[in-house]
Amino acid sequence: MGYSDVDQLAINTIRILAVDATSRANSGHPGAPMGLAPLSHVVFNKFMNFNPKNPKWLNRDRFVLSNGHGCMLQYALLHIYGYALSLDDLKSFRQIDSITPGHPEAHDTPGVEVTTGPLGQGFANAVGLAIAQAHTGAVFNKPGYDLVDNYTYCIFGDGCAMEGIASEAASSAGHLQLGNLICLYDDNHISIDGDTAVAFTEDVTKRFESYGWHTEWVKDGDHDLAGIEAAIQRAKEVKDKPSMIKITTTIGFGSKLQGTGGVHGNPLKADDAQSVKKAFGFDPEQSFAVPQQVYDLCNKRAAEGAAKEQEWNALFEKYASEYPAEHADLARRISGKLPEGWEKNLPRYSPSDPAVASRKLSETVLEKIYEAVPELLSGSADLTGSNNTRWKAAVDFQPPSTGLGDYAGRYLRYGVREHGMAAIMNGISAYGTLIPAGGTFLNFVSYAAGAVRLSALSHHRTLYIATHDSIGLGEDGPTHQPIETLAHFRALPNIMVWRPADGNETSAAYYSALTSHSTPSILALTRQNLPQLEASTIEKALRGGYVALEAENANVTLVSTGSEVSLCIDAAKYLKEQHNVVARVVSVPCFEIFDVQDKEYRLSVIPDGIPSLSVEVMSTLGWDRYSHEQFGLNRFGASGPYKEVYKKFEFTPEGISKRAIATIDFYKGYKVRSPINRAFQQLI
Amino acid sequence: MGYSDVDQLAINTIRILAVDATSRANSGHPGAPMGLAPLSHVVFNKFMNFNPKNPKWLNRDRFVLSNGHGCMLQYALLHIYGYALSLDDLKSFRQIDSITPGHPEAHDTPGVEVTTGPLGQGFANAVGLAIAQAHTGAVFNKPGYDLVDNYTYCIFGDGCAMEGIASEAASSAGHLQLGNLICLYDDNHISIDGDTAVAFTEDVTKRFESYGWHTEWVKDGDHDLAGIEAAIQRAKEVKDKPSMIKITTTIGFGSKLQGTGGVHGNPLKADDAQSVKKAFGFDPEQSFAVPQQVYDLCNKRAAEGAAKEQEWNALFEKYASEYPAEHADLARRISGKLPEGWEKNLPRYSPSDPAVASRKLSETVLEKIYEAVPELLSGSADLTGSNNTRWKAAVDFQPPSTGLGDYAGRYLRYGVREHGMAAIMNGISAYGTLIPAGGTFLNFVSYAAGAVRLSALSHHRTLYIATHDSIGLGEDGPTHQPIETLAHFRALPNIMVWRPADGNETSAAYYSALTSHSTPSILALTRQNLPQLEASTIEKALRGGYVALEAENANVTLVSTGSEVSLCIDAAKYLKEQHNVVARVVSVPCFEIFDVQDKEYRLSVIPDGIPSLSVEVMSTLGWDRYSHEQFGLNRFGASGPYKEVYKKFEFTPEGISKRAIATIDFYKGYKVRSPINRAFQQLI
Repeated sequence: MGYSDVDQLAINTIRILAVDATSRANSGHPGAPMGLAPLSHVVFNKFMNFNPKNPKWLNRDRFVLSNGHGCMLQYALLHIYGYALSLDDLKSFRQIDSITPGHPEAHDTPGVEVTTGPLGQGFANAVGLAIAQAHTGAVFNKPGYDLVDNYTYCIFGDGCAMEGIASEAASSAGHLQLGNLICLYDDNHISIDGDTAVAFTEDVTKRFESYGWHTEWVKDGDHDLAGIEAAIQRAKEVKDKPSMIKITTTIGFGSKLQGTGGVHGNPLKADDAQSVKKAFGFDPEQSFAVPQQVYDLCNKRAAEGAAKEQEWNALFEKYASEYPAEHADLARRISGKLPEGWEKNLPRYSPSDPAVASRKLSETVLEKIYEAVPELLSGSADLTGSNNTRWKAAVDFQPPSTGLGDYAGRYLRYGVREHGMAAIMNGISAYGTLIPAGGTFLNFVSYAAGAVRLSALSHHRTLYIATHDSIGLGEDGPTHQPIETLAHFRALPNIMVWRPADGNETSAAYYSALTSHSTPSILALTRQNLPQLEASTIEKALRGGYVALEAENANVTLVSTGSEVSLCIDAAKYLKEQHNVVARVVSVPCFEIFDVQDKEYRLSVIPDGIPSLSVEVMSTLGWDRYSHEQFGLNRFGASGPYKEVYKKFEFTPEGISKRAIATIDFYKGYKVRSPINRAFQQLI
Repeated sequence: MGYSDVDQLAINTIRILAVDATSRANSGHPGAPMGLAPLSHVVFNKFMNFNPKNPKWLNRDRFVLSNGHGCMLQYALLHIYGYALSLDDLKSFRQIDSITPGHPEAHDTPGVEVTTGPLGQGFANAVGLAIAQAHTGAVFNKPGYDLVDNYTYCIFGDGCAMEGIASEAASSAGHLQLGNLICLYDDNHISIDGDTAVAFTEDVTKRFESYGWHTEWVKDGDHDLAGIEAAIQRAKEVKDKPSMIKITTTIGFGSKLQGTGGVHGNPLKADDAQSVKKAFGFDPEQSFAVPQQVYDLCNKRAAEGAAKEQEWNALFEKYASEYPAEHADLARRISGKLPEGWEKNLPRYSPSDPAVASRKLSETVLEKIYEAVPELLSGSADLTGSNNTRWKAAVDFQPPSTGLGDYAGRYLRYGVREHGMAAIMNGISAYGTLIPAGGTFLNFVSYAAGAVRLSALSHHRTLYIATHDSIGLGEDGPTHQPIETLAHFRALPNIMVWRPADGNETSAAYYSALTSHSTPSILALTRQNLPQLEASTIEKALRGGYVALEAENANVTLVSTGSEVSLCIDAAKYLKEQHNVVARVVSVPCFEIFDVQDKEYRLSVIPDGIPSLSVEVMSTLGWDRYSHEQFGLNRFGASGPYKEVYKKFEFTPEGISKRAIATIDFYKGYKVRSPINRAFQQLI
């Protein structure tokens, strides 16, 4: 429990590095790092097990800085402990193409576990990391082999505490009794609007107690290192509750503006920076100075971590002989590879198979693959029976004491907490041993938009099972019928938006989602039944778009997705019979995959020479990419039996035909070029 | 406090109507109405002041059913109390074009205050309604004239309680000490996944206490009408805290499946429906039967409400003579009209005016109009200094006891609670006397997407001040730089998405937003400075799109928004000088308004004969509407000084020129038709 001058020096070094980096960038947040330096020093130097030379060691303790704007804290820590983050990287803080961006990005910076900055996300990620640890431990630990027993430490501030996503995740974590989660609340009373007295006067500790958390309070987080250590130690001893330690700190500790909003989001003035350095015994003329004693202290800790990893590796090797199957499974998961041949379980359909809702087709996939893919952890935001996300034999992920399941269970009841679910899924994905899938209605993926964006930005392999994907949900009405949602996520980079038209396309969506190692997927699925298409195969669907109905000398191509593909096929028949017009039909279940097919193929699907008309029962925005004209729904839907809703908006063979003919007429006399042709390549 | 058999009959009538309507629709949620009938009877019959013949009477008590799936409760109540909602309307439950859709929609159904169903929204709306009451009362009430003193009653269930949006709103309401807000928690232990024990085991009462709420618990909400009444009475007496009354009920009370998930989201089986009717003394063969005594009881209450409105009207008339200015102001607000001539305060700019960030231009508008538009209530989700949402003389809306402001204050500190803010704004708008404006970064409007959607669906005049609107925010990096956000909201029906290019366009955005009575607006504003355009005027910008730089015999039209318009003008110069290519430049600050201009005008802006290229530093999705080719950013941004970020992605005169030339080349030899021409009209 002893703390020496070197500890204080390490703390002040972190503070000064934050001052220097924000000054050099003339941008950033010095206040949080200066206030958090003491507690983060205790966490890193006394508790965290990690090996900076292998930031991916499975059983490392996880550290999450949920108030990501304070990232100079994290970068400074990573540097002094010897991660691959140099002084030059600190000098490039907030500069183009540096590994020290304005907020921490997990896929770019070694030692950053999750991408944070959008407030509340990191806190919920930490809950996901803790869930993944609990599950992985429950599956793989054996007597004498505590292979997976790490803790997750998360710092969060007032901003995170105010965000609903953190409330959702905290309530879940309390329910799940995650004793391996220790969250340190930076109680500094300052947010961007100044003193939190203007908007945030709740009793945070009491709130966390109401969720079932163990709580602690360290009143002088600026100086009481022993108190911080003791509180964390007590928290570690509480095994059946997550812990929230409120640590009262002074934002910008050492600055003339300490304790005020003035030090939150702006670099210190030059004279203030100098005076801080003087006060902490640093040379005011020097920048980015790290005393050798600090490196020595941190290297010692890092060496202890490296030794722990060595021990772990030896244990894991021994485990191989005693539990070869489990060893192979865990080693495979760590490598990121899926089990050999898992995809053979994907169901295939022929046209004679009955019409089935794609949410049910999705359930069938889960039933068929859950044994082959043990890292798949499904769940739903309280819509299990509607999302069809639970295979029959599933066991719930629950604290054993509840009698409702156990930590080895692979089905997570997220509650009505879509945003929390998505961010928890990101955390589960970040842990490295699981692939999370979570269900809600497509319309309510919007509630989770902040976290879905981070799934994409952080390269998480997460699956959003988004059922009730259109006006086809019928009676629930406009409040539940997505119009803008597909456009929204099609505009988001690095995410696959699938809208399968039948069983083979649904299987393809799962194949794509599970094999896309660095990309999340949204599977938009119907409530209503869909016939099995004549031309569909898994392989064709995996090209993102394909010809669902070919025709010679066609007058028009109908381009569509999901439930409207079979409708377009009916429309093609109607056009032939009623108007002697020949229509081809194309299914584009996934824009993002179709877009990266070779141009020749794409042009074979949407050819030159004839106009194309898109048909999708939601916003037409973005459909110009594949069509000359668009038939969609640029208004809110309606409450009623779904067939009547479709009819109201003219999504019928007649309604489509009318627009197909208008499209053909409109392009008469024009040299029609496929929209696949573009003047230049987009930046991607 | 006496309750008679007629009360019980009224309660059972509500239950039976819910059973009948869901059975007839073969869809819907009977369980919640059956469980909530007793407490809603007490609320409507003993507490609520309302006049069914004038559902818009200002000082009525507000009723919000946050668990909107239980809307047959609300429809049944509205019917029996004599609102313009007939038995036939109940029979049309969940049918196309009925006023009884699957979830309550405020703009369609008399007596429905806010649109609910997406969970948590109604609860947060109720907080907004209470804020609006407190503010309106503080502004207009005078000694002897308690003109505005209504209560807001809100029922919410476990689902709402789990949603983060409700947590955010509850924390705000506690801070704001809203004594006029009484929330009734339907503690029935059932959500879609079954017993809440699977996911929701927190102590809800303790949580609300942590927020500073007064709490009560009625243990037998199925029978203890007097207990419910007493709890509400005590809640009304607590003037400085909102109240949460936990009322333990039995979902589906009376059904064979009562107390289980089986009665949540499905109509009762025929035999169960019959047995319920028998048990409650109704004829099992009859449907939609309302005993005359029930109508009589409810009519009596409604008549009392009508009399209260009469008294109020008399008081308001008397107020006119004593406080003519205030009377005129309030009467005008109720009428929905803006003050005469307010728009004369909108600043106008000429090209010689300095370059200014549009977030600052927005602040200038607020400074200029706040006195003229007293119903404007601004605020921010803890980004006041960044969003520039606060005029200098603003007083905070705060409980007077805090010493930080008062309830007449027109600036709301929402805290870091974007989703809560947006839903609270919807509630404030729904009250009828205020126009709420709320700020956050554009990227974090996504956190609020669920509520923004309801702003649009419910026709609320809310203003989202969305600053830091692109990679132009610079150093904060990809976590904060929107890519998909404008596409997302452009795909959402009934919302204006403005991205002004300069001062005149910013003034136009405010003019449009404030005069769009039934449509919300998002104002996407820059962090970086923008020059004042040569050709811009408020009037031109109010056409949604206009020619910012005209040129004869042009080779290409560059179509753009916001910060990229001046960049396109620079590119046009560069094209002329370096390539002897003539480019026109078009600014389209608001798609939704441009789309409804006459075709001739639109074709004059984006003419036939030459190709057009769009330029916007975010997703290109949707830009095909106005351009043949698109230059945008279909990947995440980068952290760095903003000019370097623009350069990295080639958003420079050179980069634009390169693509303009590629576009011109690509269309050589083609008969180029403006994308304004379409084969058929979209459904809107």
